[in-house]
Amino acid sequence: MNASRKNDPLLAYLNNTVRYEDNKVILLNRRLYPEETKYVTCNTHEDVAVAIEDMTIQGAVVLAIAAGYGFVLAFEQEPELVGDELTTYTNTVYERLMSTRPTGQRLKVILDKCIAAVKPEIENGKNGADLAKILLQLMDNQVKEADDIAIETGKRTANLLEDGDKVLTHCFADSALIHMLLEAKRQDKTIEMYCTETRPYFQGARLTAHSIKETGTKVTLVTDNMPGFLMEQGMVTKLVTAADKITLEGHVCNKIGTYQYAVVAQHHNIPFYVLGYEGPDENSPNIDQIEIEYRNEEEVFYARDVRTAVEGINGLYPSFDIVTPNFVDAIITSKGVYAARNISDHLD
Amino acid sequence: MNASRKNDPLLAYLNNTVRYEDNKVILLNRRLYPEETKYVTCNTHEDVAVAIEDMTIQGAVVLAIAAGYGFVLAFEQEPELVGDELTTYTNTVYERLMSTRPTGQRLKVILDKCIAAVKPEIENGKNGADLAKILLQLMDNQVKEADDIAIETGKRTANLLEDGDKVLTHCFADSALIHMLLEAKRQDKTIEMYCTETRPYFQGARLTAHSIKETGTKVTLVTDNMPGFLMEQGMVTKLVTAADKITLEGHVCNKIGTYQYAVVAQHHNIPFYVLGYEGPDENSPNIDQIEIEYRNEEEVFYARDVRTAVEGINGLYPSFDIVTPNFVDAIITSKGVYAARNISDHLD
Repeated sequence: MNASRKNDPLLAYLNNTVRYEDNKVILLNRRLYPEETKYVTCNTHEDVAVAIEDMTIQGAVVLAIAAGYGFVLAFEQEPELVGDELTTYTNTVYERLMSTRPTGQRLKVILDKCIAAVKPEIENGKNGADLAKILLQLMDNQVKEADDIAIETGKRTANLLEDGDKVLTHCFADSALIHMLLEAKRQDKTIEMYCTETRPYFQGARLTAHSIKETGTKVTLVTDNMPGFLMEQGMVTKLVTAADKITLEGHVCNKIGTYQYAVVAQHHNIPFYVLGYEGPDENSPNIDQIEIEYRNEEEVFYARDVRTAVEGINGLYPSFDIVTPNFVDAIITSKGVYAARNISDHLD
Repeated sequence: MNASRKNDPLLAYLNNTVRYEDNKVILLNRRLYPEETKYVTCNTHEDVAVAIEDMTIQGAVVLAIAAGYGFVLAFEQEPELVGDELTTYTNTVYERLMSTRPTGQRLKVILDKCIAAVKPEIENGKNGADLAKILLQLMDNQVKEADDIAIETGKRTANLLEDGDKVLTHCFADSALIHMLLEAKRQDKTIEMYCTETRPYFQGARLTAHSIKETGTKVTLVTDNMPGFLMEQGMVTKLVTAADKITLEGHVCNKIGTYQYAVVAQHHNIPFYVLGYEGPDENSPNIDQIEIEYRNEEEVFYARDVRTAVEGINGLYPSFDIVTPNFVDAIITSKGVYAARNISDHLD
């Protein structure tokens, strides 16, 4: 890590969360972070698979990168393997890593890239040791590319902020939010942040609040019922969140709550900007293909493992909601600033 | 309690929370309820004062009634006292009870009624024992009146509901919400309820969910970031809350979050009905007189005494917000159904 990066927030760069070092994969333990900054060492691809399954690492990009590096470890363990045996082994490792999150879209993208890179090399007679080197290079490039996308997205969003802005965010918008704040500082814009605690999992009270604090930006935590009041009182001037998914028509799927904040923001003429990273999902032309995921209702009865609700009632836990394009002022990707309805231009 | 009331929810009637019995004041311990239904016995007005101060009882009406009964106990302890000595004693007791919540508007109303009732009787030569009897009658009437107001408000609101309505509520709307549901049952309307957990204190997850369950109505708990989604999905057809205060111009002050839910409800043409009980506050002509109370910011860092936020950040805890009349479809009081802007008609 270069010197200037050293003082930046830990989650600003992927290699602080997942990296390859001396034939091992090192992972930030997200079950402990940010209260404790501890790393888990994986010696085999099986170790990586288990770390994904037991939630030691979280976040679509992070676990996809970890799985890719896990693939490197797998080849290092069989350096002499060649030909059909190597092909069979490759397929077995792929299946094991994919099985950790069968619906992980990002995971599949990365693992498919790995397969595409190694298959021709096996045909060319390369052995496991060769493939490990090739994949390591590929994954290092993926990490750099993902960081660059976040940095560029953050910078473009910072350009839209004005000195004195008070920005509300919801859930954890990941590293682009951090880079937005770092860039705003470089531009001498004083920004103040509000973040929701984000029930039931408290991403905002923990990851978001902590990462914002690390940028040296003032951050104020509120509960999820307070954003409307902040907007009505003029205490918030911009709303900025990430997106779990963006359709080609400009619908923004994000953590449950984003919708109600977007509606109230529009009522108060508060711009809503979406950190769009690598842009829309080519496989999601519109919301017809999107099914709201309902998670275990038990989770709304607890706060950090402590029962907060009475017994004998029902619960509901929709994990995200969908904001229609008319409530989105702009989606900012690594390539540019787009009106939500024109987000497919990002793919041109 | 008569037979039909016995199966109703505990919080449907005031005397299940606060009552006078055999020269004692019996109070439901709200620090334990609804997990445990336990009562505290007060032998003196000082016991009652402490119970108010240490939050054994909660809610403006409940603690005002308890204080009034505490006044009865005080006179019972000095049955022979008359004249100037009785006046001095009365004033001392009044000051002590008032000191438990110096800004308690409802508390002052009840205690002032007590003073108004006993002062002329002292002039007439009555002693402490006489005053105790007079005040006990007064307080029993106050309890009946408060229950009648809640019952009538609930009934009128039930008349506005349609069979199959799915009603969202926020925080604890107290006994009128219970009576709304009991009346809906009598009218053979099937109602389903959603309630927010209501951070940071979880009134919704505890008191509201529990009381609704006791009426035999289906209740589903959501976190405070989910109501907008429920409305957008058509899962909610009405929004019903109480009000901490209603101005003569029809502004509704209620638990923080009410504002954002009212704004999103209007966007989806979902009626917002306010349980207005005894109507607007005559001393609050408009919102110029209303100051938002900010409570201890530390509370947003915890959930039921467990730390949920990282250290070293700021917090903000506005305890209520203000909904302008244009977002309120109707305010229902014991006297009728009013457009918010006409709520002062309730006083005619």
